[in-house]
Amino acid sequence: MQTLKTVAISVGDLNGVGFEIILKAHEHIKRLCKPLYCVNYTMAHQAASLLHTQIPNDFQIFKVSGEFVIEAGKVSAQSGQYSYDSFIAAIELAKNNHVDAIVTLPIHKEAWMMAGIPYVGHTDVLRDLLHSDAIMMLGCEKLYVALFTEHIPLRDVPQRISSDALYNFLLRLHESIKRQPIAVLGLNPHAGDHGVLGDEERFIEEAIVRANTQIGESIFEGPLVPDVAFTPRSREVYKTVVAMYHDQGLAPLKALYFDEGINVSLGLPIIRTSVDHGTAFDIAYQNKASMLSYINAINAAVDFTYN
Amino acid sequence: MQTLKTVAISVGDLNGVGFEIILKAHEHIKRLCKPLYCVNYTMAHQAASLLHTQIPNDFQIFKVSGEFVIEAGKVSAQSGQYSYDSFIAAIELAKNNHVDAIVTLPIHKEAWMMAGIPYVGHTDVLRDLLHSDAIMMLGCEKLYVALFTEHIPLRDVPQRISSDALYNFLLRLHESIKRQPIAVLGLNPHAGDHGVLGDEERFIEEAIVRANTQIGESIFEGPLVPDVAFTPRSREVYKTVVAMYHDQGLAPLKALYFDEGINVSLGLPIIRTSVDHGTAFDIAYQNKASMLSYINAINAAVDFTYN
Repeated sequence: MQTLKTVAISVGDLNGVGFEIILKAHEHIKRLCKPLYCVNYTMAHQAASLLHTQIPNDFQIFKVSGEFVIEAGKVSAQSGQYSYDSFIAAIELAKNNHVDAIVTLPIHKEAWMMAGIPYVGHTDVLRDLLHSDAIMMLGCEKLYVALFTEHIPLRDVPQRISSDALYNFLLRLHESIKRQPIAVLGLNPHAGDHGVLGDEERFIEEAIVRANTQIGESIFEGPLVPDVAFTPRSREVYKTVVAMYHDQGLAPLKALYFDEGINVSLGLPIIRTSVDHGTAFDIAYQNKASMLSYINAINAAVDFTYN
Repeated sequence: MQTLKTVAISVGDLNGVGFEIILKAHEHIKRLCKPLYCVNYTMAHQAASLLHTQIPNDFQIFKVSGEFVIEAGKVSAQSGQYSYDSFIAAIELAKNNHVDAIVTLPIHKEAWMMAGIPYVGHTDVLRDLLHSDAIMMLGCEKLYVALFTEHIPLRDVPQRISSDALYNFLLRLHESIKRQPIAVLGLNPHAGDHGVLGDEERFIEEAIVRANTQIGESIFEGPLVPDVAFTPRSREVYKTVVAMYHDQGLAPLKALYFDEGINVSLGLPIIRTSVDHGTAFDIAYQNKASMLSYINAINAAVDFTYN
């Protein structure tokens, strides 16, 4: 029997649904890993009391200093700062090999802005602190989507499609995950229809051939026609897809597997997964939040430690 | 009790799956409408005999001249020409009010090219012959997606987003269908995130406000964040979505409802629906084709006659 992996968990914005999910899921996830919660007892007790429950006896914390009054659903600088500190603590634990992986609960971008934190989200922080270019992958066991471009205007996407950039991306992706085959989408409708509807597919094709040659195996296939890459028949073959841009991959993914999806950062010196939902301020502390994405994120984090 | 509507049916490429679907579905669809098949008996008998079956006694045809040897799965000029002639016959029947609507089976683009037909597909012909700018809408009762831009390279999409063009599109869409509310998607990830990830959403927002003001009712809502517009929760609210570009709408649609989807041409002087699959040459005359999209197309054509 394998010993359980230790996973540091950053609590996210305490005015949102994160801590409710942590408490509700604790009994379940302690069978999957040894959770180490980045929080302090004062804040943990306050959150538990708002949820009319208690902190379990085996609730291990890594102390993150700071105190403020939790206000369900409120965007606040204090709550933003605390969620950032919790995240930084988790990263440090992983960097120093005190934990095997980290799982993050959602932060609120505006709260970070109010707190003067110079990052727009988790991924930015990871890239900066770990000096590596993370690959953003979302989904679940049934279907993972890795994003070649992420949070940029649609009009800037086509010029980013180059054989070199995509080739490097594919190699880094292959180093991080052992899944195969991996479908690589085209950029244009009908994957360009032989150049009639756009010609960026020639760079995509070149990158695929180069990556497969370098690896010595046909890991990557494509460019696939984007709007048929997510049909039931295609999903039987391809459970991992590289999308050229954000909505190309995430609109079908969220249409299919919204509640169970998670977010994985690949290509970093540490393993990090995250729930794929936000702070859900509108239902904070109402006992309505779903644990599914969180439990999947824990499971995936543990899985990736064996890659 | 209402009398059945008459629907002209173009047979599509006879080397593909169209005629098999017609024959298998005939008993079913004659309860939904009076079908008038645009074909001749020689070709119909030949196709039936390849399928080891007979033409039903109540199989009404509108004669389309021409004869050739059907070869399952073959791209041929003769078959291309015949599918075009069948389609033109259906259009003429509708234009002259001899039928209430038309339903088209799939043609093969390369076969049309080989036959020297100067159109790339059904929609082009409709626009040219009917001097109107058809709106392409795909989907099924559960979810219809209307495309603001269609078969153009992705890089050309952003510059097409203007308040005037979208405003006119929304008004024409509203004239054609009574469904509401209608979601209008943003163009950029997170619908631009307040301009940080692109700013075309300001034109989209303006067009929505103008269209609703003109109509005097809030029919259109948005711009919606594209990748969450197709989640289960969003689909409970929005069963009709305007996508800014091809894959934004069709990738999630086909992920969800691939086999049942149909194609509707709106904003034309005639009603036309179509199956949303191709000629499927690889399974032609093998008794494997699904009738679902065709039956849905017939149902929708009849429904739209009551709009």
